[in-house]
Amino acid sequence: MTLPIDATLIAARNDAEQRAVRSDYAHLGEQLERRGIQIDQVREQVARFGVAIPSWGVGTGGTRFARFPGQGEPRHVFDKLQDCGVIQQLARATPTVSLHIPWDKCSDWGELREAAGFHGLGFDAINSNTFSDQPGQAHSYKFGSLSHTDAATRAQAVEHNLECIEIGQQIGSKALTVWVGDGSNFPGQQHFRRAFDRYLESARQIYAALPGDWRMMLEHKICEPAFYSTVIQDWGSSLMAAQLLGPKAQCLVDLGHHAPNVNIELILARLLSADKLAGFHFNDSKYGDDDLDAGSVSPYRLFLVFNELVAAAKEGLAFDPAYMLDQSHNVTDPIESLMTSAIQVQRSYAQALLVDRAALDAAQEANDALTATHLLKQAFQTDVTPLLQRVRLDGGGAIDPVATYRASGYRNRVAQTRPAAAGGGGGIV
Amino acid sequence: MTLPIDATLIAARNDAEQRAVRSDYAHLGEQLERRGIQIDQVREQVARFGVAIPSWGVGTGGTRFARFPGQGEPRHVFDKLQDCGVIQQLARATPTVSLHIPWDKCSDWGELREAAGFHGLGFDAINSNTFSDQPGQAHSYKFGSLSHTDAATRAQAVEHNLECIEIGQQIGSKALTVWVGDGSNFPGQQHFRRAFDRYLESARQIYAALPGDWRMMLEHKICEPAFYSTVIQDWGSSLMAAQLLGPKAQCLVDLGHHAPNVNIELILARLLSADKLAGFHFNDSKYGDDDLDAGSVSPYRLFLVFNELVAAAKEGLAFDPAYMLDQSHNVTDPIESLMTSAIQVQRSYAQALLVDRAALDAAQEANDALTATHLLKQAFQTDVTPLLQRVRLDGGGAIDPVATYRASGYRNRVAQTRPAAAGGGGGIV
Amino acid sequence: MTLPIDATLIAARNDAEQRAVRSDYAHLGEQLERRGIQIDQVREQVARFGVAIPSWGVGTGGTRFARFPGQGEPRHVFDKLQDCGVIQQLARATPTVSLHIPWDKCSDWGELREAAGFHGLGFDAINSNTFSDQPGQAHSYKFGSLSHTDAATRAQAVEHNLECIEIGQQIGSKALTVWVGDGSNFPGQQHFRRAFDRYLESARQIYAALPGDWRMMLEHKICEPAFYSTVIQDWGSSLMAAQLLGPKAQCLVDLGHHAPNVNIELILARLLSADKLAGFHFNDSKYGDDDLDAGSVSPYRLFLVFNELVAAAKEGLAFDPAYMLDQSHNVTDPIESLMTSAIQVQRSYAQALLVDRAALDAAQEANDALTATHLLKQAFQTDVTPLLQRVRLDGGGAIDPVATYRASGYRNRVAQTRPAAAGGGGGIV
Amino acid sequence: MTLPIDATLIAARNDAEQRAVRSDYAHLGEQLERRGIQIDQVREQVARFGVAIPSWGVGTGGTRFARFPGQGEPRHVFDKLQDCGVIQQLARATPTVSLHIPWDKCSDWGELREAAGFHGLGFDAINSNTFSDQPGQAHSYKFGSLSHTDAATRAQAVEHNLECIEIGQQIGSKALTVWVGDGSNFPGQQHFRRAFDRYLESARQIYAALPGDWRMMLEHKICEPAFYSTVIQDWGSSLMAAQLLGPKAQCLVDLGHHAPNVNIELILARLLSADKLAGFHFNDSKYGDDDLDAGSVSPYRLFLVFNELVAAAKEGLAFDPAYMLDQSHNVTDPIESLMTSAIQVQRSYAQALLVDRAALDAAQEANDALTATHLLKQAFQTDVTPLLQRVRLDGGGAIDPVATYRASGYRNRVAQTRPAAAGGGGGIV
Repeated sequence: MTLPIDATLIAARNDAEQRAVRSDYAHLGEQLERRGIQIDQVREQVARFGVAIPSWGVGTGGTRFARFPGQGEPRHVFDKLQDCGVIQQLARATPTVSLHIPWDKCSDWGELREAAGFHGLGFDAINSNTFSDQPGQAHSYKFGSLSHTDAATRAQAVEHNLECIEIGQQIGSKALTVWVGDGSNFPGQQHFRRAFDRYLESARQIYAALPGDWRMMLEHKICEPAFYSTVIQDWGSSLMAAQLLGPKAQCLVDLGHHAPNVNIELILARLLSADKLAGFHFNDSKYGDDDLDAGSVSPYRLFLVFNELVAAAKEGLAFDPAYMLDQSHNVTDPIESLMTSAIQVQRSYAQALLVDRAALDAAQEANDALTATHLLKQAFQTDVTPLLQRVRLDGGGAIDPVATYRASGYRNRVAQTRPAAAGGGGGIV
Repeated sequence: MTLPIDATLIAARNDAEQRAVRSDYAHLGEQLERRGIQIDQVREQVARFGVAIPSWGVGTGGTRFARFPGQGEPRHVFDKLQDCGVIQQLARATPTVSLHIPWDKCSDWGELREAAGFHGLGFDAINSNTFSDQPGQAHSYKFGSLSHTDAATRAQAVEHNLECIEIGQQIGSKALTVWVGDGSNFPGQQHFRRAFDRYLESARQIYAALPGDWRMMLEHKICEPAFYSTVIQDWGSSLMAAQLLGPKAQCLVDLGHHAPNVNIELILARLLSADKLAGFHFNDSKYGDDDLDAGSVSPYRLFLVFNELVAAAKEGLAFDPAYMLDQSHNVTDPIESLMTSAIQVQRSYAQALLVDRAALDAAQEANDALTATHLLKQAFQTDVTPLLQRVRLDGGGAIDPVATYRASGYRNRVAQTRPAAAGGGGGIV
Repeated sequence: MTLPIDATLIAARNDAEQRAVRSDYAHLGEQLERRGIQIDQVREQVARFGVAIPSWGVGTGGTRFARFPGQGEPRHVFDKLQDCGVIQQLARATPTVSLHIPWDKCSDWGELREAAGFHGLGFDAINSNTFSDQPGQAHSYKFGSLSHTDAATRAQAVEHNLECIEIGQQIGSKALTVWVGDGSNFPGQQHFRRAFDRYLESARQIYAALPGDWRMMLEHKICEPAFYSTVIQDWGSSLMAAQLLGPKAQCLVDLGHHAPNVNIELILARLLSADKLAGFHFNDSKYGDDDLDAGSVSPYRLFLVFNELVAAAKEGLAFDPAYMLDQSHNVTDPIESLMTSAIQVQRSYAQALLVDRAALDAAQEANDALTATHLLKQAFQTDVTPLLQRVRLDGGGAIDPVATYRASGYRNRVAQTRPAAAGGGGGIV
Repeated sequence: MTLPIDATLIAARNDAEQRAVRSDYAHLGEQLERRGIQIDQVREQVARFGVAIPSWGVGTGGTRFARFPGQGEPRHVFDKLQDCGVIQQLARATPTVSLHIPWDKCSDWGELREAAGFHGLGFDAINSNTFSDQPGQAHSYKFGSLSHTDAATRAQAVEHNLECIEIGQQIGSKALTVWVGDGSNFPGQQHFRRAFDRYLESARQIYAALPGDWRMMLEHKICEPAFYSTVIQDWGSSLMAAQLLGPKAQCLVDLGHHAPNVNIELILARLLSADKLAGFHFNDSKYGDDDLDAGSVSPYRLFLVFNELVAAAKEGLAFDPAYMLDQSHNVTDPIESLMTSAIQVQRSYAQALLVDRAALDAAQEANDALTATHLLKQAFQTDVTPLLQRVRLDGGGAIDPVATYRASGYRNRVAQTRPAAAGGGGGIV
């Protein structure tokens, strides 16, 4: 058995570009040296950085209007793992995979762990699903799950989360991510306070079942699929729930789950102050929960998120954020989008490492707004491409992952064994 | 063959409530009399008002996350027509149905027309669909339809619209509504000006095929399914296209297709000034294109829309707006939601008829903002429920359509012949 | 000394309208009786309801672009109090006034208390101001106040708040409202966590000085005057601060201080769950913190706020919300706007009292969304005008306060002693 | 008489940095060479680029809450011109100034022209003001100007614009920018269609007075100072007005005048298609019309604007956009902010020149969204700092304008002759 992309192809393509990369890297090193930064130290930090791939991300996404599948869509969790293997082999920034139950259930978790190991992948947080019904399910989630008015439905949803924890333990996960679609579409449909109380009651049962070294990551969302109210609508509700549940409960921030104009980097600063930041679901958005590729529309915002994280780490705050890409790839090859997005996230992290923190502290103290913001811009404007290329090169990946992937013919190859997926419209307008 | 709801049930329920309705109506008449309004004249105008039902509206809607069907979902256009018949029989405010091709295609349009006639229904604008692929379709709409870069795909989309016109002619429609999902998810994906030019080129071919007494209604939308840009993103682009196409092309306003905070009643005023207002797709929204029930979240906004329309009509502007409900019923019985929504739209129209236009003109001229806005509020705060009840009662409908519908057992009855629909998740996150 | 509006004028105008009011009231009573509601009980509850007037509200407001003063602008707190007296005399819904320091400082608080007593007015929460500089002030608030990087500036801001408490004690206030303009205009300008810590440190000193029966009301705001970040940007940060300060600290909700689309009634439900709801600053908005008249754009939203409050009160939750109007009257006579707005708030409260709570509970339990939302709409659509008119009539006020005020010639009268105010542009674009 | 900043200071500071700049420039040249781009050609294009400074921009701005002036605020148009001279001397990207009447009126326009010439400055579009009242003005603009219900007020506003044209002719302007604050704060306050008609009637009179080689630039704005509706609320209304006025009327896009989430680069593409793009007012915003420094929050959006402009120019479209900074500098030294912002705008233009247009065309044709967006990102991620530094160096400016400005002591120097400006609060909440 061999890794999905031929190593000699990677090497050949890298050879053609190496010289330019090394020249660019050297010149970037000089520039950073002038600012008092050792490029190799930054490179080492960046090399240790990773962001998880959601198993569902390797399939083509869609909207309520339609889904247009691509070639060679993964059929099951093993196919998905293989696609994740390609991403990690070429881009070297995604060492873990995050599963979604029930879709990723399999009959032999040991076999799955072994397959992951072969690709050099581990498992990150496990995700439960109580926002859609599965065939044969006793109680429907049409009107909610953890917060449903009916006790049996809540119990079923709790039970599903407990199963997720069990599965997670078998594959080495250390966290359960809980996002529910619960909410309402009409004023009056739901009793806001009672729904929140029921959510808490259910969440407490899940919390009680968490292994000692696990976290429970609560994910808020302002709307969709519920369009008038949601039970955990923003970080305030998420914080309240996490406080009431206990120290292992923390708040997960998905970049697309907020009201328009909201300052997300400020929210994460508050969650850090409250010692309740669980981590991030990265994506980008222009209008709502668009689930576009991370940094594809607002790269500076992504940088500002990492600027807060790097500052907090440097100041010695104890926190351990989970990073995952959570995107819907509707018009691109998911493998290409995930490689590109992982590198974009990595880029933001690298740039944040370049901020002159001492000078920034001084400018902030002196209320020299222009200098303070310039220091951030200086870091953001720095083209760290050669640094990221070197990290991949050193790690055995591809200098240009997308071009290498395209050259490999992987997608056509798997399309021969993976049958064409059904697309078409949801018929839902 | 009989109408779907037993007439004796309707009569019996009406009898129990008639006395209260007549007393309330009489008192409302007294109140309006004091304001110089003859209630019977208003009632007659309201009785002539109607809003179309979209054929797809009688099925349970969903989101990209899941769809939770109800009992007795309609199987085909004849089932849909029967459900529309129930709505019209009880609520008397929805004399027409708007079809969606290809979903509503049938082998015998004459039979369909006859079925509609039996329910006292006509056909409103016909809607094309080029936002999702159908089985066996030659060219995919994944990357657009009327504005696709590929000429063959554009030709296919044009051809589909021509077929819609032909169908429309067979059932008595007088308008084609064109909404496309075309757009992009990434900066750079689409050449904005060229895509617009291609859209126009395709639209011109459709326009050329319009019968003499038809209209082409262009529908704009800020986003979804495309999440970075759309080809007809707002009323400005829609106006440009309609101007370039010709007098039969007009702009359709869906209340949920705008950026946050946008003043929709002002947009319709501008379209009236430009003589380009085609009509409306009614629904309500809190966050985006939520497709909630009309007036369920922002009833005053719906009133303000009708305030503009009534004012323009009174001033003698020549325009003939098409009205349709365009909602996604995810958590209610679609028949109940459509009856309630039609009555809400009718209510807004009735209230707008009560505005003292002469006093409003005077207050506007004098910049007496407080009086001007009070005149609108006075009309909006008037409880026109008895007036609407009388319109239904006089028309043979039900004073309380939802209660009567529930008492009729219609949903259970059709569930016996209509098989349970598959729900489940889109698996799309 | 007599009340500002001639009692015989009020009586004469009321006489002309009384008969219609009593007829309407009687018929409304019949309608409510059919729903199992005793109108007189509702009327008594409504008669006990009051909302505070902010002293600054009786002056004409403006924007950064310009201010266009009206005739007879109040010169000082005694003029303001007289205008508040007019409002309360005619509309009977605003028994208290909320002062703003330093603008309302006067040399004899006893005299002010006496003047208020003459008008039947008391004093509500007192408001500090550290968002603008005063002549002769030692340290500028250009870069913040309670969260300023400079300790001396923070101390000055704390000191000002302590003075406000002292003044409040002299006039009978029981709460201090703290809103700060602190924040930043550039990414990087402010260290988010440190600024929050500094705010807390200052707030603790103010909290420590609160009399035993006082509350400290923290007001959040997403932006303006700071346009990139604010220190208390949303209810989440406000909650964190209130929790850290102690039980006397609570969160004040201004309806215009949120991101677009945010569900405010849901926020207040969460604050009720957390036992941290201080109260409201009422106004309306279409685009941002527009400070438009309460309920002038979104009357249903205002109703939904009261629906939550009435439900919570009925369920026995212990809370005591402060209500204040906080509006900017740029194009109307402030007295007219404040009377109208107070009545609009009162209307929303009255309508919320009409909701059939038992039926709503049942519909919510059964996930009958359509019935649940209909129950709210039924209450909202009820025209409670005659009930509100009766409350004013019984309380010695005017059936039609605006018409009576206009007939009184009050504005022209005071314009003779109050000199014309300077307007003009801020020169700020 | 000498230029405001000592040339020897500039030279000395440049000398210290030149070597690094030349090294970075050379390496950037190598990188671009690999992409087939000649850096010197790009540099020449960038050197020809300029953006106008608004005369009001050199004064400290404020909000309705407060204004906190800095030291040495300019007293009159000659002081303003001197500050603009500093900006142009150091940053070499702002060759023109845009005046605002009546604030910039002076008794001798020839003297002003001469002063401008001394600083190497010309005059760009002239701006009228009918959104605030001036002392002694006959008719108030409280309720509108060009669209006022009163004919005399409209005539006064037209007259003011005609005077602006006359002044503009004396100083060499070739365009009049018309922005009005006209609109309404309450539903019903204004008759939408009539107000638009009155605006057009007034605008036609101004248009008729335009010299043959002038343009009339119409500026739209969604809200503020009017908070319910505005007369030219968006580009759609602006387009309608420009079409009705004639070919010399075009639409000006201020980046902060749109609804949340709106795609501005798409709007400008539409205006290009309609041959109606006048130009831009550059600034940045997070929440509304925040008037933050250009590119300070969303640098990628600014790049995407220039990407459209560069593409259109390359495709041979005939258009001549006017560029102006329109910002409110509340917490920075306006000279520093304007230099930085001009360079940020210049940076975006330079980056847009680097996009591989042929490859982008191909990717767009092939619907290769990932490649297309990567091509934009590649250009945006390129650090063009050394190129911009070289442009300044070659033009006689400063490599680091802000540091040089600070070293010059200019602000302290002018503070000695310019008296401290009054700040304080607007008293408007």
